[in-house]
Amino acid sequence: MRLLLINPNTTENITELLALRARDFAGPGVEIRAVSGRFGARYIASRAAAAIAGHAALEALAEHQAGCDAVLLACFGDPGLWALKELSPVPVVGMAEASCHLACLSGRQFSIVTGGERWAAMLREFVASLGLSSRLASIRTVAPTGAEIAAELDRALAMLAASCRACAEEDGAEAVILGGAGLAGLAGRIASGVPVPVICSLEAGIRATIAAAELRLAKATGGSLAGTPAVASAGLSEALAAMLDPGR
Amino acid sequence: MRLLLINPNTTENITELLALRARDFAGPGVEIRAVSGRFGARYIASRAAAAIAGHAALEALAEHQAGCDAVLLACFGDPGLWALKELSPVPVVGMAEASCHLACLSGRQFSIVTGGERWAAMLREFVASLGLSSRLASIRTVAPTGAEIAAELDRALAMLAASCRACAEEDGAEAVILGGAGLAGLAGRIASGVPVPVICSLEAGIRATIAAAELRLAKATGGSLAGTPAVASAGLSEALAAMLDPGR
Amino acid sequence: MRLLLINPNTTENITELLALRARDFAGPGVEIRAVSGRFGARYIASRAAAAIAGHAALEALAEHQAGCDAVLLACFGDPGLWALKELSPVPVVGMAEASCHLACLSGRQFSIVTGGERWAAMLREFVASLGLSSRLASIRTVAPTGAEIAAELDRALAMLAASCRACAEEDGAEAVILGGAGLAGLAGRIASGVPVPVICSLEAGIRATIAAAELRLAKATGGSLAGTPAVASAGLSEALAAMLDPGR
Amino acid sequence: MRLLLINPNTTENITELLALRARDFAGPGVEIRAVSGRFGARYIASRAAAAIAGHAALEALAEHQAGCDAVLLACFGDPGLWALKELSPVPVVGMAEASCHLACLSGRQFSIVTGGERWAAMLREFVASLGLSSRLASIRTVAPTGAEIAAELDRALAMLAASCRACAEEDGAEAVILGGAGLAGLAGRIASGVPVPVICSLEAGIRATIAAAELRLAKATGGSLAGTPAVASAGLSEALAAMLDPGR
Amino acid sequence: MRLLLINPNTTENITELLALRARDFAGPGVEIRAVSGRFGARYIASRAAAAIAGHAALEALAEHQAGCDAVLLACFGDPGLWALKELSPVPVVGMAEASCHLACLSGRQFSIVTGGERWAAMLREFVASLGLSSRLASIRTVAPTGAEIAAELDRALAMLAASCRACAEEDGAEAVILGGAGLAGLAGRIASGVPVPVICSLEAGIRATIAAAELRLAKATGGSLAGTPAVASAGLSEALAAMLDPGR
Amino acid sequence: MRLLLINPNTTENITELLALRARDFAGPGVEIRAVSGRFGARYIASRAAAAIAGHAALEALAEHQAGCDAVLLACFGDPGLWALKELSPVPVVGMAEASCHLACLSGRQFSIVTGGERWAAMLREFVASLGLSSRLASIRTVAPTGAEIAAELDRALAMLAASCRACAEEDGAEAVILGGAGLAGLAGRIASGVPVPVICSLEAGIRATIAAAELRLAKATGGSLAGTPAVASAGLSEALAAMLDPGR
Repeated sequence: MRLLLINPNTTENITELLALRARDFAGPGVEIRAVSGRFGARYIASRAAAAIAGHAALEALAEHQAGCDAVLLACFGDPGLWALKELSPVPVVGMAEASCHLACLSGRQFSIVTGGERWAAMLREFVASLGLSSRLASIRTVAPTGAEIAAELDRALAMLAASCRACAEEDGAEAVILGGAGLAGLAGRIASGVPVPVICSLEAGIRATIAAAELRLAKATGGSLAGTPAVASAGLSEALAAMLDPGR
Repeated sequence: MRLLLINPNTTENITELLALRARDFAGPGVEIRAVSGRFGARYIASRAAAAIAGHAALEALAEHQAGCDAVLLACFGDPGLWALKELSPVPVVGMAEASCHLACLSGRQFSIVTGGERWAAMLREFVASLGLSSRLASIRTVAPTGAEIAAELDRALAMLAASCRACAEEDGAEAVILGGAGLAGLAGRIASGVPVPVICSLEAGIRATIAAAELRLAKATGGSLAGTPAVASAGLSEALAAMLDPGR
Repeated sequence: MRLLLINPNTTENITELLALRARDFAGPGVEIRAVSGRFGARYIASRAAAAIAGHAALEALAEHQAGCDAVLLACFGDPGLWALKELSPVPVVGMAEASCHLACLSGRQFSIVTGGERWAAMLREFVASLGLSSRLASIRTVAPTGAEIAAELDRALAMLAASCRACAEEDGAEAVILGGAGLAGLAGRIASGVPVPVICSLEAGIRATIAAAELRLAKATGGSLAGTPAVASAGLSEALAAMLDPGR
Repeated sequence: MRLLLINPNTTENITELLALRARDFAGPGVEIRAVSGRFGARYIASRAAAAIAGHAALEALAEHQAGCDAVLLACFGDPGLWALKELSPVPVVGMAEASCHLACLSGRQFSIVTGGERWAAMLREFVASLGLSSRLASIRTVAPTGAEIAAELDRALAMLAASCRACAEEDGAEAVILGGAGLAGLAGRIASGVPVPVICSLEAGIRATIAAAELRLAKATGGSLAGTPAVASAGLSEALAAMLDPGR
Repeated sequence: MRLLLINPNTTENITELLALRARDFAGPGVEIRAVSGRFGARYIASRAAAAIAGHAALEALAEHQAGCDAVLLACFGDPGLWALKELSPVPVVGMAEASCHLACLSGRQFSIVTGGERWAAMLREFVASLGLSSRLASIRTVAPTGAEIAAELDRALAMLAASCRACAEEDGAEAVILGGAGLAGLAGRIASGVPVPVICSLEAGIRATIAAAELRLAKATGGSLAGTPAVASAGLSEALAAMLDPGR
Repeated sequence: MRLLLINPNTTENITELLALRARDFAGPGVEIRAVSGRFGARYIASRAAAAIAGHAALEALAEHQAGCDAVLLACFGDPGLWALKELSPVPVVGMAEASCHLACLSGRQFSIVTGGERWAAMLREFVASLGLSSRLASIRTVAPTGAEIAAELDRALAMLAASCRACAEEDGAEAVILGGAGLAGLAGRIASGVPVPVICSLEAGIRATIAAAELRLAKATGGSLAGTPAVASAGLSEALAAMLDPGR
C-alpha cells in the first residue's frame, strides 16, 4: 500500500518530520510518499494561509497522487479537504477530520489542544462544518512551539498535559485531540497524566487513511464528490489543469 | 489481538454468521470471540427489544471481556453503546456508530439502508444522538430478509442496489451504509451499481474496533465514561455485579 | 384511576418513599401501585445501571401493568422511556420528561438540580434527546444524599436552596427542577428562598401521569410507538415474553 | 379554583364556545371566567392580527385576572404568551404551548392540523421558539371552517380524520394536535380513524392550566419573567397601566 | 425618497432624537418622517411593553405610511417586526434585524451592548428567531442611561468602550452592535478603543432601509408576508382597520 | 468611492459583464475596478475550482486593493471569503453572503436559483456556514447558461421565472435570490411573474459593498479577522507575500 501524505505548507522540515512519524505509526508494508506545498506560507496560522494551502494541496495531489492508494492531508484544519476528495480518484482523509471522528468514538464530548491562536476560531468553524459542534467541549491553543518542544521537552510535555487535563476537568472533555504536525507523537508521552484518552492527530489520520485504502470504496460517479465537471483553466500546473479538464 | 464481538440478540445463527464475516474482514492475526445475548428477543426490531439488548450486551461484556483488547457491539443501532463504553476496561465500538463516522469521511451526506421498518425512527434518533443529523440524507428500510437473501440472492442484491441508488439519486446521499448483520458482506457485491461508496456496517465496525485496539488509548479515569461508581446490585450475574461494584 | 409507579432500581425503601409522596401529590381517588426493579443496581448512578434499569422497567411493566390506567417511570433520567411507551397499552410518562416539559411552561430557560455526579452528562444527553437543549440553562449535581437529608434537614435544604438560587442568578434559569426520588417533596420547602419557580420532579411526574390517564388518548396503532412487532424471545419473564410476542 | 380564559380575538361567539367546551373538560370545581379581546380582528389569521391580539390579551389580563388562580390563553398560536407570563401574578398557559409539550409526551414526532393557511408559517416559527422544531413532523392547514363544521359535521370530521391520518402515515407524526378554537372538542370524535393519538388543543390547554394552578409555583421575582420593571405609559387602560407601573 | 421612522414607544423626545440622528446618517435627499407610538410604555424594557409596542407600531404604520418608500422600526428589539412586514405595502426594516445581519458581514461572531437588563433575554430570543444564535457571542446590558450620557458623556463613553472591549476580548466577538435609540450616534466615538468594528444600530437600520427602498423589491403577493387576508375588526383606528380589511 | 470587484475565475468576458452591470447598480460617484483571477478555472463549477479561486482572489486582492474603499467578491458562493476579510485592510463583501442576509430581511424563508448542478451542495454548505440553514427554503439549479440567455432571452426568462415561482409555491420561499454573474440584472425582468421578491445577487452585493464602505467601520485589530500574523511564504506574488508578512 502506498499513501500520499500532503503537508500543504512550504516547510520541508515539517514534511520530513511528519513522514518520519507517519512511518512509525503505519508500520512496515505501508509506503508513505510525503510532499510539501509548492507555494504558500511557511506554516499555516491564518485564514489566508489556509486558503492558499487549499490550492497548494490540490497542486500536490495532481502532481503526486499517481500510484497512491489513499491520501492524507496532514495539516490539522484540513485546508481544501472537500475539494481534494472531489478531485482525487482515491480516498482522501484529513488529519483533523479523522481525529474528530475518532474522538467521537472515545467520548461524548471532545476537546482540541493545538498551537496557533487563530486556529481556535478556524477549528471551531471546521468542527461546525462537520456537524459536530454539539460534541465539541473546547479548543485550547496553548501548545508550545516546535522550538520550545525541542529545547525543553519535559517542560513542553508538562504544559501540554496541563492543557489536556484542563480540557477534561474544566471543560468536560471525555477525549482530547493533540492537533498539529508539531505535536505529532507526543500524545503517548502525556497520556498517563490526563484522565481521558489523548489522541495524536497524525496517528488518527494515518490509521484512517490506511483504513480508507483497505476498504477500497469506489470513487463516486454521482453527487458533489464525483470527479469535477470538465472545465478549462489558466495558469495552473499541467497536472492540475489535466485533472480539471480530463478530456482536453 | 483478540476482539470480543457481541451480538446482543439471542439467535446463535446470526452470531455465527457475524463471526464468519468478521474474520474475513479482520484477516489473520485477529482472534474474534463472538457471543450472543443470554436473554432477549430473537432479533431486534423494536425499542423494547433494543432496551433489553442493552442489558444483555452488558452481561455479555461482563462475562466474556477478560483477555480481549477491544469490543465490537454488532447490532446495527448499537443498543447499550455508551453504557458498554463506560463499563468496559477496553475500547468498545458500535457497528452503527463506526459506520456513520466512516460515512462522514466518504461523503458530506450519507444514507442508511437497513431492514426492519421500526429501525427508521430508531436510527434517526441514534444519528441525532451522535450529533450527525445534519449529515444524514435519508434512511430507507427496504432490505430483504435473511431468508429472502438466501433464497434469491440475485434478486435481493438488485433490490438493495436499487435502494442505495435511490439514496444517492433522490435523497442526495454521497455515501450509503448497508446496515445490519443480515446484510454483512453484501456491500461489495452491489457497489458497481451504485454511484457513491457503499459501506458494509460490519466491515466498518471491525476496522474501527481493530484501530481502537491498536491505538491503545487509555481507559478514562474521569468524566462520564470512567468506570462506574461502585454500587451494589441485585439479580444480576456474578460477573456483571462485580463490574458494577468492584470492591465488594 | 389506578397508576403504576415503576421505580426501576432495586431499593424497596425508595419505592416506598416514592409511593408515599406520590399519594400525597395525587390525592384521594387515585390508587398508586408502586413496584421496584426485580434486578439491577441499588440506585442508578451510571450509564450501565441505567441501561439495566431500562430492561428492569420493562419487566416491571409487563408484570404489573394489568388494570392500570397509566404508568409513571419514577427514576429521574427515565431509563427505557421510549421502549416503555412502545410496549405499554396505556400511557407512560417519565419523571424527567414531565419535569422538563413543565419547566418549559414556567420559564424560557430551566435548570436541573440533582444528585449523582455522572447524571450531569447523562441528563444533558437526555434533554438533548427531547430536543430541549436550547432551553436548558444548566445542570448542577450538588444535592445532598438521602442520608444527609435525614440527618440534617435544615442544612440540606439550605444547600439545595443555594444551588437553585445559583441556577437562577448565575446560569439564567427561570425555573429549576429538583430532580430525583431523594429530593421528592422538598421543592415546596425551599421555594421561598429561590427567585424562580422550583419544580418537584415527582409532583410533575404524578400530575402528568394523571393527566395522561384522564385524556384517554388511544394507543398508537401505527408509527414507532405502536405495539412491538411480534418477535419470539429467550430468557425473559413469561409476562414480558408475552408482550413481545402476543400471538405465541 | 378559578381560571381566566382569554380569547384574544373579538368574536364573542367563539369565546362562548370555548367557555362551554372548557367547562366540559374541566369538570365541576373549576370556575371558568371567559373574556374576549376588547379590540382587534374578528378572528386571527395573520401576523398583524396576532400582534394586535398580544396587546388585547394583556388588556384582558389586566382587567380580569383579579381573583383567578391561573390563565389560559385560548388562541392556538398563543399571541403575547411570554408577555402575559411576565405580567401576570399567576401562571399563564398557552393553548398551543400546552398542546406541543403534551404531544411530545405522546410521540417522538408530532403534527398540527389547524385552519387558516397563514398559520402554517406562523406556527412553524412558534414551535421553533419553543425549541421543538426537531420534534415537529408537519403542519397541515386543511381544517374546515366553523361554518362548514356546523353545516356538514360528518363531512368535516371525515376531512379532519383524513388530514390527521396523512400526518401519521405520510409525515411520520406519532401524535397529532387538532389546533384552534373551531376544532375544540372534535379530537375524540375522529380518534378512532387515526393510527396515533389525537390531541384537542383546548383540552390540553385546560388540563395544563389546572395543573399549573394546583402546583402553586411561586411567581418569579428574578429573571426575565419577574414582574415588569415599573414604567409609566400612555393611552392604555387604567388596569394595564397600573400593572406596568405598580407604584404610580 | 421618503422613509417612515417608527419609534414604537410614547416618548416624543426619543423620537426627535432618533429623527435628528437618522437625518445625519441618511444625508440629503432622504426625507424622514418620524412618529411615536400613540399608546404604550414610555420606554420599552419588558416583554409586556414590547408586545404593546408591536400593536402601536402597526397603528403608526397604518396612519403614516402613505407616501413613504420604506419603513424603519426604530426600537432595538423590533417589536411587531414581521407583522409590520406583512401589513406594509413597502419594505419594513427593523433596527436590530439590520444590525445583526450587518454584524454578520463584519465578523464570524458578534455581540450586542445595550441598556435594560431584561433585554438580554429578549434579544437572545430575537437573535434565535433570526436563526443567528450560532453567530452570537454575547449580549451585555451595561449601557448608561440617557440621563447619564447627557450628564457625563466622557464617563459614559468610557463605560461603553469597556463593555465593547470585553465583548471582543472575553466573549470572542468580532463585531459589536451598540443597540438602542439612547446609544445612537456613539459608536463612532468609541470605535478607536475597541479592537473590532462597532456598529451603530440606528446607522445600520437607516442604511438598510434606504437600500430596501432603492432595491424596489415588489411586495409579496403570496406566502406569509403577502398582505393580510381580509378580516373585519373592532376597536382599532380607522386606518388600521382598513388595512386589515381592505375591501370593507 | 472606489470599489474593487474581484471575479475570481479567469474569464475576462464575465469580469467585463459584471463591471458593466455593477456600474449600473452603483450609479455615478462610485468607481469600480474590476479584475479577474490570474489563474484557475474558466468558470467555477466544482469544489476544486472554488478552492483554487479562493487563492486567486487573495492574489487579486493583494495586487489591486490599494486605493479601494471596499471589495466585492463577485462569484456567487464566495470562495475565500473569510480569508479575504482577514487579509484586507478594507471591508470585503461576498455576493452570496450579501444576498442571503438581504433575503433574510425580505422573507422568513428564502430560496436560491442558480446555474451549475454542483453548486446546490456547495451553496447548502455555504448557507450553513453562515448559520442560516433554518432560513433556507431550497436551492434550485435550473438556470439557463449564458449562451442560452443570449440566444433566446425570452425563453430563458420564462424558465427562470418558473423556477422562482416554484421556490415560492412549492418550497415555501418568501424571497428568491437569482445567484451568479450570468444572471446578473435579470431579476427585475422576471419579478412581475413571481409572487415574492426576487433579488439580484450582484445588486445585493454592490449595495452591501457600498454600505460597507460608507460605514467606515475600522479594521479589526483583534480576533480572527485582524490582519494575519506575519509569516514568511514561498512561491507567491510579491504583493501577496508582503501582505502575509508585512514586516519583511
